[in-house]
Amino acid sequence: MRKLNFNAGPATLPESVLQEAARAVLEYKDTGISILELSHRSKEFADIVAESKLLVKELCGLDDSYEVVWMHGGGRMQFAMIPMNFASEHNAAGYIDSGHWSEEALEYAAFYGDVQILATSKDDNYSRLPHWPSSVPDRLAYLHFTTNNTICGTQWHHIPATNVPLIADMSSDIFSMRHNYTNYSLFYAAAQKNVGAAGVALVVIRKDMLKRIVRPLPPMLNYKQQAHENSILNTANVSGVYTSLLMLRWIKEKGIDAIEKENKEKAALLYDALDNSKTFTPTVTERSHRSLMNVCFTADTPEHEKEFLALCAQNNITGIKGHRSVGGFRASLYNAIPLAAVEKLVQLIKTNP
Amino acid sequence: MRKLNFNAGPATLPESVLQEAARAVLEYKDTGISILELSHRSKEFADIVAESKLLVKELCGLDDSYEVVWMHGGGRMQFAMIPMNFASEHNAAGYIDSGHWSEEALEYAAFYGDVQILATSKDDNYSRLPHWPSSVPDRLAYLHFTTNNTICGTQWHHIPATNVPLIADMSSDIFSMRHNYTNYSLFYAAAQKNVGAAGVALVVIRKDMLKRIVRPLPPMLNYKQQAHENSILNTANVSGVYTSLLMLRWIKEKGIDAIEKENKEKAALLYDALDNSKTFTPTVTERSHRSLMNVCFTADTPEHEKEFLALCAQNNITGIKGHRSVGGFRASLYNAIPLAAVEKLVQLIKTNP
Repeated sequence: MRKLNFNAGPATLPESVLQEAARAVLEYKDTGISILELSHRSKEFADIVAESKLLVKELCGLDDSYEVVWMHGGGRMQFAMIPMNFASEHNAAGYIDSGHWSEEALEYAAFYGDVQILATSKDDNYSRLPHWPSSVPDRLAYLHFTTNNTICGTQWHHIPATNVPLIADMSSDIFSMRHNYTNYSLFYAAAQKNVGAAGVALVVIRKDMLKRIVRPLPPMLNYKQQAHENSILNTANVSGVYTSLLMLRWIKEKGIDAIEKENKEKAALLYDALDNSKTFTPTVTERSHRSLMNVCFTADTPEHEKEFLALCAQNNITGIKGHRSVGGFRASLYNAIPLAAVEKLVQLIKTNP
Repeated sequence: MRKLNFNAGPATLPESVLQEAARAVLEYKDTGISILELSHRSKEFADIVAESKLLVKELCGLDDSYEVVWMHGGGRMQFAMIPMNFASEHNAAGYIDSGHWSEEALEYAAFYGDVQILATSKDDNYSRLPHWPSSVPDRLAYLHFTTNNTICGTQWHHIPATNVPLIADMSSDIFSMRHNYTNYSLFYAAAQKNVGAAGVALVVIRKDMLKRIVRPLPPMLNYKQQAHENSILNTANVSGVYTSLLMLRWIKEKGIDAIEKENKEKAALLYDALDNSKTFTPTVTERSHRSLMNVCFTADTPEHEKEFLALCAQNNITGIKGHRSVGGFRASLYNAIPLAAVEKLVQLIKTNP
């Protein structure tokens, strides 16, 4: 029986995507070859890449001033590649530190360049967003931030314009709502939350950034060469990119507006139950900072925590434990989590009033 | 109908592996979750990693002085990571240049350190192996070479002992024969030829190498931290690692001795047909340099080349074209290519006498 899986990533995929992905493992279309055997230089894979790039641009409202690239290495490789390409001792990079992943990104950057932390909510244990910096030094190579913070459950719902190239880690909320993607000079997402399965990262980069690379780098680590090689600079994760294409088709069919509406509904339902519960408390008290993607909460006693975990398990619910660094609970409500799963969870929350 | 696929990689996988991989996409074991949704921090994935590491060590005859790590980024990320970790201006690295991939590896190395090419067969268009260097400077950080050269079809069948750490790119012949893996301080393989599907690389490193890292590096690019994090330094390519585990089980069940015997049989059959053909000529004339994995050959006229490609297509054979940089034909005979497929190919070769 299929579980209701609230894991923060790798996360739930739609049943229809899984069916099609499984079919492709046996045979991709009528090629006589599995997607796991398909050459990255085949016509079939070129078509997969082309369609996925078109869909990304369409869903993000981007024109040809942007390049779309599928890469290996997940989000963390981007933590390294961004400063490697754009920051140095003489090219300081700005970071907004709103949670674990922002912090790790800036730690990676410090290996390659001067790092300026322009805002942080570390002293609040990241339970709220920091204040967006009121001014950003003009000479910064870029300003990096994380749109949604999976571990502590905060999300930027308004992104101010900036005077330097803005770079966003959108791993956990890409394609989850209408969004002005043209704010960014570069944005990226590890696929295993809203775009597919683990093992690929989606990187979208504005072409003018490719002129700003500050040091010689081998092709695999060089955005310019990656962008020019159409996602096959090396052997692509063919099946991973295909799974992402299936997700993109699913998103397009459903429509971003409908997805946003449902995501808001799901989050409202859960936060409302938590706000009205005597047993459970949402971790983020500032409502305008709350994430629609990752709802974090705690129980009033360790016994209630244990009981609730057991209750969830009895009711076929999994992936509800908070991140090991903070404990408590976390329900991740990515696009593929159906409203019915959230209703079930809310029903269980209400049994502990 | 399933094709006879002689592609050089991504390459053919055994039917049983595909069946099990497809089943896992629908549901991994009885978890109620797809392998594409399975958390890299789950008990289930920890078991997959543990079993795969044990199998790699067993199949390679390695003890606990080696670490086995699944990484993102394919072989090319290793081209970058090896010199990044071990070479510098003051720590020269030695390279043996026996083909396209060796050459690319040393080009990557030049971004990070002093590179010494100790042997090359570039002037022979890599149609033979270079002479293994008679002496290697003691002070080299390491000596890198490629055990099997996929594009031109040569393979080292005897690896001399060396006085510096030996590093091998085994992407195209790992697990294909008995081999003294303890020769190496580090060896690696992009999975999509003999170990699974595209999107993961297998890296095996002797622990003493972890003390020789020459520069500060962020965790993703640092072998020491990768080795300490048990293949989940970041979100692993869960399904990719699982496909590799399925391949490792298949290899173990068949047995390396049986695999080697069959690989020799397959290659002998094909080379023999080519050596006795008036239409086709094997590219590598020095028999002791010939690859058992990639058999490269040409036709006497462009017309015969075209005819043979058409004949293969009519007979359900695919992936037989030579690498775009050299042309002609290439039949890749990795472990999962059945003897019967090679017999079929040989039969077609014999129809053009």
